[in-house]
Amino acid sequence: MRLGLDVMGGDFAPQNAMEGVILALPELGNDDTLILIGKESVIKQKLSEKGVSDKRLSIVNADEVIEMEEKPIKALKEKPNSSLSIGFQMLNAGDLDGFASAGNSGAVLAGAVSIVRCIPGVIRPCIGTVLPTENGSYAMLLDIGTTPDAKPDVLVQFAILGSIYMEIFGKKNPSVCLLNVGTEAGKGNQQTSTAFPLMQQSKHLNFIGNREPRDLFKGEADVFVADGFVGNIVLKELETFYRLLQKRGISDPFFDAFNYELYGGTSLLGINAPVVLGHGISSALAFKNMILQVKDVYSSGVLQKLRTIFEQYNDV
Amino acid sequence: MRLGLDVMGGDFAPQNAMEGVILALPELGNDDTLILIGKESVIKQKLSEKGVSDKRLSIVNADEVIEMEEKPIKALKEKPNSSLSIGFQMLNAGDLDGFASAGNSGAVLAGAVSIVRCIPGVIRPCIGTVLPTENGSYAMLLDIGTTPDAKPDVLVQFAILGSIYMEIFGKKNPSVCLLNVGTEAGKGNQQTSTAFPLMQQSKHLNFIGNREPRDLFKGEADVFVADGFVGNIVLKELETFYRLLQKRGISDPFFDAFNYELYGGTSLLGINAPVVLGHGISSALAFKNMILQVKDVYSSGVLQKLRTIFEQYNDV
Repeated sequence: MRLGLDVMGGDFAPQNAMEGVILALPELGNDDTLILIGKESVIKQKLSEKGVSDKRLSIVNADEVIEMEEKPIKALKEKPNSSLSIGFQMLNAGDLDGFASAGNSGAVLAGAVSIVRCIPGVIRPCIGTVLPTENGSYAMLLDIGTTPDAKPDVLVQFAILGSIYMEIFGKKNPSVCLLNVGTEAGKGNQQTSTAFPLMQQSKHLNFIGNREPRDLFKGEADVFVADGFVGNIVLKELETFYRLLQKRGISDPFFDAFNYELYGGTSLLGINAPVVLGHGISSALAFKNMILQVKDVYSSGVLQKLRTIFEQYNDV
Repeated sequence: MRLGLDVMGGDFAPQNAMEGVILALPELGNDDTLILIGKESVIKQKLSEKGVSDKRLSIVNADEVIEMEEKPIKALKEKPNSSLSIGFQMLNAGDLDGFASAGNSGAVLAGAVSIVRCIPGVIRPCIGTVLPTENGSYAMLLDIGTTPDAKPDVLVQFAILGSIYMEIFGKKNPSVCLLNVGTEAGKGNQQTSTAFPLMQQSKHLNFIGNREPRDLFKGEADVFVADGFVGNIVLKELETFYRLLQKRGISDPFFDAFNYELYGGTSLLGINAPVVLGHGISSALAFKNMILQVKDVYSSGVLQKLRTIFEQYNDV
């Protein structure tokens, strides 16, 4: 498998990315290749400093870097030789089987959509986050930021994308709900009240209705669906609480699972190839997990399954 | 001052309401009258049980009760002799100076809007909640539930309502922000990106721009504006966290301030008379605080100020 990594992406690039590479190597197979995309001289220097030489590593030089604060679409256009642009071009050309970046998240999303594109039939991609649940399991909240004004039919697609991912990664017949302000069918805003019957009718969903924020951590629903505005607000409030707990010196096994810096990254759901987006602040461990996540997504067959579903998507 | 209380409203009615009345009496003035609206026999019995006799108390009989789970508008129409209906009718007729209820919140809102009505010029009322801040002060988040699909011009009015209330209750030149997923001007969904320039232009606002959930508890912004869907989700997530902390036995002075059961209630902002809505689970202390809050709102002159602003509202 040919796994591409944007070595220049992230707040602590390329240091953390390169350390993540070293952590990942023992867990990759003999047939895997890890393609490091970034400034060749810097990558070589880092590998030499660490005394790492591994034939499964290869380098693709990228002279430009898209910075974290740049305007995504403008940056992609003006920096065709950036690690991000090259990564997506290689992925699109079939020179990579998957790609991971902890770079400018808007640019990762824009590059994925404009260069690799969505699975045919998918209107908009989405991204999800994992929520730890009180019963020791986990749930998924999506969309956490790609589409602030998702139309009801887009919400239904998000639900399907989340459901299939959760199923592929071990949840049988995942239960899907709409994140809402009340549980009755008519509750919410125009978006959720219109999405509700569409989700009920979808033959691809085990839709269990509306759920409120109090249900997020109960473990009764596997996938919570919201638009990118609401999902992002919910995630940011959760991160705020976690930081307040840390600041106040409160440690607790359940709340500690909210430390998103530990996680690898999040897949862009609905993009026609494996793409994993990491936090800007990704640690070396997070980079390692991102690399392994790309491999898992590729091996899982989730993309083939999604292509089949969305090919016949006229009958939701 | 003639303060009306819906004695039949709340999950523990009339017990907690009557205990709240007894707690409030020592803090009311000689000229105040507390009008208890509900089943006269029950009220009399409760007063007699407690050995309370006070000439500032009067009873208005209401044979019907709107239950917590009833459909608001239908219930108000079918139960004209409910404590809620009678309370709003008295308020509208000028027989009360203010009214408090911990009953069915949808019915309280519907009654306020349909019987007492909004201040002329106000499109929709809203309700806010108090957020404790890390610097020991507080901020206000609104709307927490009246209007799930607030148009941008309605959000601007919410901002003005919140700002004037905060000013009247002690914050000088309150800073107002839009709750958003990023801080730049163009960020967010259609609603927030359209509301942003309108808020900037408003001569009634000290608008400081967009703020994210991480800013909610910092104490830098006094009023956070969101629509009723987003605001309600944010509040419910906050309550969820507070309950998780409680459940896990974690006590901390800052987080303890999130115990909304202790607060009195929340004013319906934009209604043309003082109306305070309490939690269904209001304790006796909460009822006492609700009664005193009605008195404060009436005495503060906030309604006169709002009437003047919205009279000349053509030039926002």
